[in-house]
Amino acid sequence: MKKIGLLTSGGDCPGLNACIRAVVRTANYYNIEVVAFKRGFKGLIENDYTILDYKSVAGILQKGGTILLTAREPRFKDFNFRKIAYENIQKHNIEALFVIGGNGSFQGAYLLQKDFGLNIIGIPKTIDNDIYGTDYAIGFDTAVNNAMEAIDKIKDTTMSHERIFIVEVMGRDSGFIALEVGVAVGAELTLIPEYPLPLHVIEETILKAKEKGKSFAIIVLAEGVASAKELSELLNERLKDKDVGEIRYQVLGYIQRGGSPSAYDRVMASKFGVFAVEKFVQGEKNFMVAYENGKLLTKPLEISFNKVRIPNLEEYHINNILSM
Amino acid sequence: MKKIGLLTSGGDCPGLNACIRAVVRTANYYNIEVVAFKRGFKGLIENDYTILDYKSVAGILQKGGTILLTAREPRFKDFNFRKIAYENIQKHNIEALFVIGGNGSFQGAYLLQKDFGLNIIGIPKTIDNDIYGTDYAIGFDTAVNNAMEAIDKIKDTTMSHERIFIVEVMGRDSGFIALEVGVAVGAELTLIPEYPLPLHVIEETILKAKEKGKSFAIIVLAEGVASAKELSELLNERLKDKDVGEIRYQVLGYIQRGGSPSAYDRVMASKFGVFAVEKFVQGEKNFMVAYENGKLLTKPLEISFNKVRIPNLEEYHINNILSM
Amino acid sequence: MKKIGLLTSGGDCPGLNACIRAVVRTANYYNIEVVAFKRGFKGLIENDYTILDYKSVAGILQKGGTILLTAREPRFKDFNFRKIAYENIQKHNIEALFVIGGNGSFQGAYLLQKDFGLNIIGIPKTIDNDIYGTDYAIGFDTAVNNAMEAIDKIKDTTMSHERIFIVEVMGRDSGFIALEVGVAVGAELTLIPEYPLPLHVIEETILKAKEKGKSFAIIVLAEGVASAKELSELLNERLKDKDVGEIRYQVLGYIQRGGSPSAYDRVMASKFGVFAVEKFVQGEKNFMVAYENGKLLTKPLEISFNKVRIPNLEEYHINNILSM
Amino acid sequence: MKKIGLLTSGGDCPGLNACIRAVVRTANYYNIEVVAFKRGFKGLIENDYTILDYKSVAGILQKGGTILLTAREPRFKDFNFRKIAYENIQKHNIEALFVIGGNGSFQGAYLLQKDFGLNIIGIPKTIDNDIYGTDYAIGFDTAVNNAMEAIDKIKDTTMSHERIFIVEVMGRDSGFIALEVGVAVGAELTLIPEYPLPLHVIEETILKAKEKGKSFAIIVLAEGVASAKELSELLNERLKDKDVGEIRYQVLGYIQRGGSPSAYDRVMASKFGVFAVEKFVQGEKNFMVAYENGKLLTKPLEISFNKVRIPNLEEYHINNILSM
Repeated sequence: MKKIGLLTSGGDCPGLNACIRAVVRTANYYNIEVVAFKRGFKGLIENDYTILDYKSVAGILQKGGTILLTAREPRFKDFNFRKIAYENIQKHNIEALFVIGGNGSFQGAYLLQKDFGLNIIGIPKTIDNDIYGTDYAIGFDTAVNNAMEAIDKIKDTTMSHERIFIVEVMGRDSGFIALEVGVAVGAELTLIPEYPLPLHVIEETILKAKEKGKSFAIIVLAEGVASAKELSELLNERLKDKDVGEIRYQVLGYIQRGGSPSAYDRVMASKFGVFAVEKFVQGEKNFMVAYENGKLLTKPLEISFNKVRIPNLEEYHINNILSM
Repeated sequence: MKKIGLLTSGGDCPGLNACIRAVVRTANYYNIEVVAFKRGFKGLIENDYTILDYKSVAGILQKGGTILLTAREPRFKDFNFRKIAYENIQKHNIEALFVIGGNGSFQGAYLLQKDFGLNIIGIPKTIDNDIYGTDYAIGFDTAVNNAMEAIDKIKDTTMSHERIFIVEVMGRDSGFIALEVGVAVGAELTLIPEYPLPLHVIEETILKAKEKGKSFAIIVLAEGVASAKELSELLNERLKDKDVGEIRYQVLGYIQRGGSPSAYDRVMASKFGVFAVEKFVQGEKNFMVAYENGKLLTKPLEISFNKVRIPNLEEYHINNILSM
Repeated sequence: MKKIGLLTSGGDCPGLNACIRAVVRTANYYNIEVVAFKRGFKGLIENDYTILDYKSVAGILQKGGTILLTAREPRFKDFNFRKIAYENIQKHNIEALFVIGGNGSFQGAYLLQKDFGLNIIGIPKTIDNDIYGTDYAIGFDTAVNNAMEAIDKIKDTTMSHERIFIVEVMGRDSGFIALEVGVAVGAELTLIPEYPLPLHVIEETILKAKEKGKSFAIIVLAEGVASAKELSELLNERLKDKDVGEIRYQVLGYIQRGGSPSAYDRVMASKFGVFAVEKFVQGEKNFMVAYENGKLLTKPLEISFNKVRIPNLEEYHINNILSM
Repeated sequence: MKKIGLLTSGGDCPGLNACIRAVVRTANYYNIEVVAFKRGFKGLIENDYTILDYKSVAGILQKGGTILLTAREPRFKDFNFRKIAYENIQKHNIEALFVIGGNGSFQGAYLLQKDFGLNIIGIPKTIDNDIYGTDYAIGFDTAVNNAMEAIDKIKDTTMSHERIFIVEVMGRDSGFIALEVGVAVGAELTLIPEYPLPLHVIEETILKAKEKGKSFAIIVLAEGVASAKELSELLNERLKDKDVGEIRYQVLGYIQRGGSPSAYDRVMASKFGVFAVEKFVQGEKNFMVAYENGKLLTKPLEISFNKVRIPNLEEYHINNILSM
């Protein structure tokens, strides 16, 4: 019986379990056994694994997080530890290693390809949706919905107290969550790292909103731009004579990456998993699953390295029109 | 000042208000006034309208339903009533009529183009997502999430009582909701009108699931295939000697089309609305907004007439693998 | 080491797992082992059990349904099968049997007290909240919230189409869910089995709402009064000349009893479980846990037999005022 | 026609609109007109009001926040401004002022009783549920559910990364939210201002959980105890040699006080509002609505002044047992 390895790596996100289930069931469907390593590369090094079959993945589809756990493993940068990892993989007679991760994890795993010729198959996941080469990564839709629902709640308070509110969403290097959430909640302003706005533009936007008679405003801020705490302090200081009221802030943080996955993430994670295994069965090697122009395809794994996906400026245009 | 007309028509769905807001704000952005007719074509005939400006659409983005109301209007099939409708439109000096609706509504509105040369712009919405010519119609994602969340709840009961459960979802002519929901909830079987399965296949699937040790099963049934009540009665009768327990059913019904729209629907509805107005501003006529291969584009309105979108058989394949 | 038995019986509901966890952890805290029987009385007869300890109940607090499963067991009415059940209990040296169930299950278990002197401890659960002797039973709050959220969604459709909608909620003999939900959704009319209204009063209420200018209405109907299908057909027939539009209906059904329990149910189920075990440790016998006037107390198990809790007519009064 | 005044004051919370609706509809039911002042005491001073009737409160039952807005008004401490407020009240011929607020607002309003003999009626609301004299205040149940749902999501991350997580919930002076949420999410430790724990106890609890093999832990922290940021820094420093991993934190903040109210809050807010108006109609004066031992009653308004409700130590006991 053929064998494949499987692991989840990097920050967790909703949809990982749906993808694990899909990989395992598709593998079993094609008579392939799945050796699932725990805590990402750590499990490879320590040979900490479990055999997953179609029964053992029952009931996980709708669960957030990852049943395989995830962890950082700095030792994997060291060739000697990668050698140990590869030896473990060889012991199991594993033909390919499936990595559900971001581009950092893809690059890590790819070292096993370069060092030892191991077949590496990447399935993209990150709530930030900034993996180069694919329009979609598992977890994004749920994260956006989580953030949106939280801001819908904050809006009640903001309206009742007629305040300006800065809400910090995830996105250390990337504004995808902020842009999508900004449209979804009707934010008066959305701030993303890819297109920095000078402070005076932010101030003018706030003052213009007040002038137009808006009694409250939501500013969606990607964490990569600034901390909401600092920005609110700065703006409170600079606008203190402008009668805009005290600007408050909220950091949404970890609630964005947890919870039961949305339908979109469950379906995409399932399709990504089925597709990855079927392409492997058909003989493809060293690829990542990509979603482009509404279709699934494979791309060389290296395509995602050292690049980032950049949002479209056009989204900004939409935000400007709709925040009227 | 230029003027456009706007109405929502057909069954309501989540995202209509988000789209109304986007049309109105984009129109105002380009100095166009919006005459919004109530209850679809009924409002045209009765000249029952309201002027919407950017302020009057504040706070509706996250609301289900349609603030413009919707209704069936059989009189619109009669030329004399259409003439009255057109005269009302002329009184307002409306240059184009924006119809947020399904293909039935598009065909209805198109008669005003044929009869009187009115510029008709269609924005596709239907929870069924079966409008020909576009990969997406407003409302689908929310409906799928609504159905999924309901079935997640039913699964608790099903597991605790070790039952087989038939859940009827919407889709009179179309299996898109059922297919998507089937993957999202991990249904053991999904039944859609486009690919009828003989009864004995359904029975065998149930018996095979039991054999494999599954203690419960969810069957997702599109309403176009059969009524859940009748199918459960039929199966209970035919399987009564097979020790599969009593098969129960639930019709999800109207909870699928209500509720606050998902992030995806808010964003898509917003983009559809902005795009439609901008294409109008650029001089395009008699088009529907379409989403294809991940991009927004315009298509001749007639393209959607008398055709239906058909789901991909490949989805069935995924369902089969994942329901293992 | 002392031992107790535990089972869940009757229809499942949210909060059962929270209560199982509380019973098991409290028992372990007092050095008591828990023998948990599967599928209610069926597990007793077939000695189908598992030993639950504090670790094995980790992660179940927030789950709907019951990990112990539940089933009907008609054989338990037969003394010979109860004798087998009791012998199984004796084999385990079980000192008391904890039954999380409704009054039917309490009466069933009580036969083991009458026949063999077994100490029976009842913890009340039923989404209907109609167990005599306690103001609260596990599952009610979640069921009410589930129904309310579903009706909030249906309201969007009802408003957009300006319809009258009959929503059937659970409550075969009891109107508690209907009454609570009626207030929570602002129903124009609430119909419960305990206070039957003549049909003409229902008709007059509908007509009066229309007269007052209400464009839509929600009627919450407890299933014990009539089927929503039949009532809507009847009203459509009788009001067909009254210009109230077509009256539609929706049966909420099983979505009411599933899903993650609300905070209230998690907390109450936890408190009920801790309290039951602590009273057992203190030597109390043959009691049910009751919640009365905001306090937990014990009552003789028989108190709940052959009686039902009746809602307060005053609630009707509130409904009348608020549905103005 | 009789007239009453109405305002909401202090921090907003879910259920205020349900209560406004109940007060207005009940007043109209008894032929009383409602003069609703905006932004709490600010509206009294500035005579900024609107007349609410039963129609104008349609559709607000399920909305978070307050349609009457709320604000701080330091000028109300000054007799001269209170005099202006009272003169405005007199102009309207208002017989009693209904204040939906916390004990701070009750004390503020009571000055109008002391200064000018105005009949003041208080309806308790605060998500903290710490108003002395009533077991329940509007908003608590929703806040607890909001916090619980957020922590359910954080738990996915916590489990996947095997971390210890400190979650800060609201409660500046009071641990009610923390205690309830702690039980509802199965927190390993709950920290509240009323019963401070020495730091070494917190450390020992963490170490003990690790020893028992728990791979992750949630600590629920009321904001009145410490900031989550500081506590996590402190614990990370003190436990850095103990192999417990990095302790992370999240401040839930404003998402707790927004959102559509839970069924419990809608029903309680409705009952509080109906009860308050009916007691006024019956001639009672200067009271607050209280909920005690499962019943609604009136209490002298002063009863809530300068005291706080204290949670029961017994809850701690339950937390200890269940966090095993």
